[in-house]
Amino acid sequence: MPARLLTQCRLATMTPGGAPYGLVEDAAIAIDNGRIAWAGASPELPSQYTELPEELLGGRLVTPALIDCHTHLVHGGDRAREFEMRLNGVSYEEIARAGGGINSTVVSTRAASEQELIDTALIRLDSLIADGVAVVEIKSGYGLTVDDELRMLRVARRLGELRPVKVVTTWLAAHAMPRDFNGDADQYINDVVIAGLERAAAEGLVDAVDGYCENIAFSPAQIERVFQKARELGLPVKLHAEQLSDQKGAVLAARYGALSADHLEHLAPEDAGALAAAGSVAVLLPGAFYALRETKLPPIEALRSAGVPMAVATDCNPGTSPLSSLLVTMNMACVLFRLTPEEALAGATSAAAKALGLSGEYGTIEPDTRAELAVWNVKHPAELSYRIGRSPLERRISAMETA
Amino acid sequence: MPARLLTQCRLATMTPGGAPYGLVEDAAIAIDNGRIAWAGASPELPSQYTELPEELLGGRLVTPALIDCHTHLVHGGDRAREFEMRLNGVSYEEIARAGGGINSTVVSTRAASEQELIDTALIRLDSLIADGVAVVEIKSGYGLTVDDELRMLRVARRLGELRPVKVVTTWLAAHAMPRDFNGDADQYINDVVIAGLERAAAEGLVDAVDGYCENIAFSPAQIERVFQKARELGLPVKLHAEQLSDQKGAVLAARYGALSADHLEHLAPEDAGALAAAGSVAVLLPGAFYALRETKLPPIEALRSAGVPMAVATDCNPGTSPLSSLLVTMNMACVLFRLTPEEALAGATSAAAKALGLSGEYGTIEPDTRAELAVWNVKHPAELSYRIGRSPLERRISAMETA
Ligand SMILES: [Zn+2]
Ligand SMILES: [Zn+2]
Repeated sequence: MPARLLTQCRLATMTPGGAPYGLVEDAAIAIDNGRIAWAGASPELPSQYTELPEELLGGRLVTPALIDCHTHLVHGGDRAREFEMRLNGVSYEEIARAGGGINSTVVSTRAASEQELIDTALIRLDSLIADGVAVVEIKSGYGLTVDDELRMLRVARRLGELRPVKVVTTWLAAHAMPRDFNGDADQYINDVVIAGLERAAAEGLVDAVDGYCENIAFSPAQIERVFQKARELGLPVKLHAEQLSDQKGAVLAARYGALSADHLEHLAPEDAGALAAAGSVAVLLPGAFYALRETKLPPIEALRSAGVPMAVATDCNPGTSPLSSLLVTMNMACVLFRLTPEEALAGATSAAAKALGLSGEYGTIEPDTRAELAVWNVKHPAELSYRIGRSPLERRISAMETA
Repeated sequence: MPARLLTQCRLATMTPGGAPYGLVEDAAIAIDNGRIAWAGASPELPSQYTELPEELLGGRLVTPALIDCHTHLVHGGDRAREFEMRLNGVSYEEIARAGGGINSTVVSTRAASEQELIDTALIRLDSLIADGVAVVEIKSGYGLTVDDELRMLRVARRLGELRPVKVVTTWLAAHAMPRDFNGDADQYINDVVIAGLERAAAEGLVDAVDGYCENIAFSPAQIERVFQKARELGLPVKLHAEQLSDQKGAVLAARYGALSADHLEHLAPEDAGALAAAGSVAVLLPGAFYALRETKLPPIEALRSAGVPMAVATDCNPGTSPLSSLLVTMNMACVLFRLTPEEALAGATSAAAKALGLSGEYGTIEPDTRAELAVWNVKHPAELSYRIGRSPLERRISAMETA
């Protein structure tokens, strides 16, 4: 990406402290060496950038490229027939007996070739890219053996080579109990979650460690053993917490300085302070809330007043959130969770970067951040959350295009 | 469109009485003169079609092209700032005082040039086309003067020339009271709704007549006067009915043999029979239900057991449903209204055709229907309603492409 100057744009820097959205009218952005050299109002452009090759953006809005900080993008199969069975009145038990539920995705993921996993994930990844996404977190969690979990992360890494996006990988072997262990969760934590994590770390496949803390999944004590191993290995942690019940998972995550606690519909409002103190991000997943027809909202006002940054992510997965549009997710965050459009955009940029430990690199437009930008055919950034069902992306500008 | 034979596909004919979705495996479709000549299982292909030029579809699913039977696609401006104000806690009254609400769309629509109305509607229309849509209903209703209403329908007709879609126009001058009449709704009905309808009919601009029957809009008695004029002019009617309260609008519509009654959240279950007897379609608009965070569901089970065909439409409009994806709408119909995926697909094909008086022409794949098809990268038709946020459309096949 050669040095250049973008002009004639409106700019939403998403840096805090100034105008809403960090909005700058009649803006210019100088890019050098794949990073933002300068961004601000055109009349204030420093003279050293005035000679750069200029690209006119016709008054369009420029934001940081979007970040989807919580996905299960890599998986085999789909659960469309299960979706249909449920709507035809078939009970959860019958579906489970017929091989449905998360176990069916585990079976499909194990059965799929690496190439099939890549091909099917690319369709979903391209859908995110069409929404202006440049950074995607991808979790393991449908292999549930050491080899199958490692394979998922290898596929995730490969996706980052096949498309101009940064992929951040997460070890989520503690996602569900496989049928293989006869219900012995502690044994599974030892033999697969912890043993596999050591291998994943040794092979450089893993950027963070996650778990599903829930009465239908793993207990706080089991999760804590995984977190201790992550700490030993120097890996940051995060947690699926308080989705269906209050397990105090968020408090546990905060105690381990987690990057984020995710879902949080059943977070006790008084626990927001622990997340704030730990600097953890609340990752809101309105797609799962919508698809499961949940009625209990996450304690948004408590998170807001405690100063917990709120990210917004697709949770793209075949069971509870078959959603591959981050813009639709932002709309859901506004409509269902009553986030403001500014909070929703921060949730998909600056707060999402923080949830991935990437603040200062991605998610804002300011000197030294990476030149990962989205150019939109909209007049005002609120339009990004207001419209449903089409992406007004004009194009992404990415230093990764030529990387 | 030269005569040809499509083979190696799965076919969802959406004709009733046979397999779910009218599903045919290993199917073939013979097209002649822009219409379906034959469709069925390949081994049964009549010999007169075996010599047609063959096109292999690689096992993909073919359905009738989709139909969006209720939209307000043509309008000026957007309401993103109003959306943002509301989420920032500004009250409805303050927004109205600041010029928000439907009146702001009327002001923007009147102020926009014909070319601006065309250009902005094309963006939304292209979004629908990307979801496989071939027929779009478009209503007037943001002009609220005779000339401005006629202009909206002229723009709608023009859209049908600019894109390979069939546009069906609807006169909806009885959409809202403009500020011009000092609240004298009867005067407005005379001077604009009825007088304008006569002109629209004379100019061939109108295919059907609609109204908004609601305590915040027009009374059943006022709507009936419009319906009487429609009957005089030989035009079919439909009605925005029972969205916010039970005005018995659907019963009125049924009495006039309406094509459809639309919204229906507050329909009394016992009134479903009147719609069934009249052959009227229930047009469900889950986008508005979602965006307004309604909690009262339309009486789906009553409609189902009365045998009322249920269509599903975007209601694409800038205030209460800024939604331009019919696939997202089908997902909402399943998730929020508990339609089955088969009902949702029928809602966007066969039932939608009936709601526009186009049964036998569009919305099913059978001999003599128009060759308007959607080819999908999915294995099973349930996937069309299951996924959120990307269109798996491979391509449309349309006799209008070369028309
Ligand atoms: Zn998740
Ligand atoms: Zn409407």
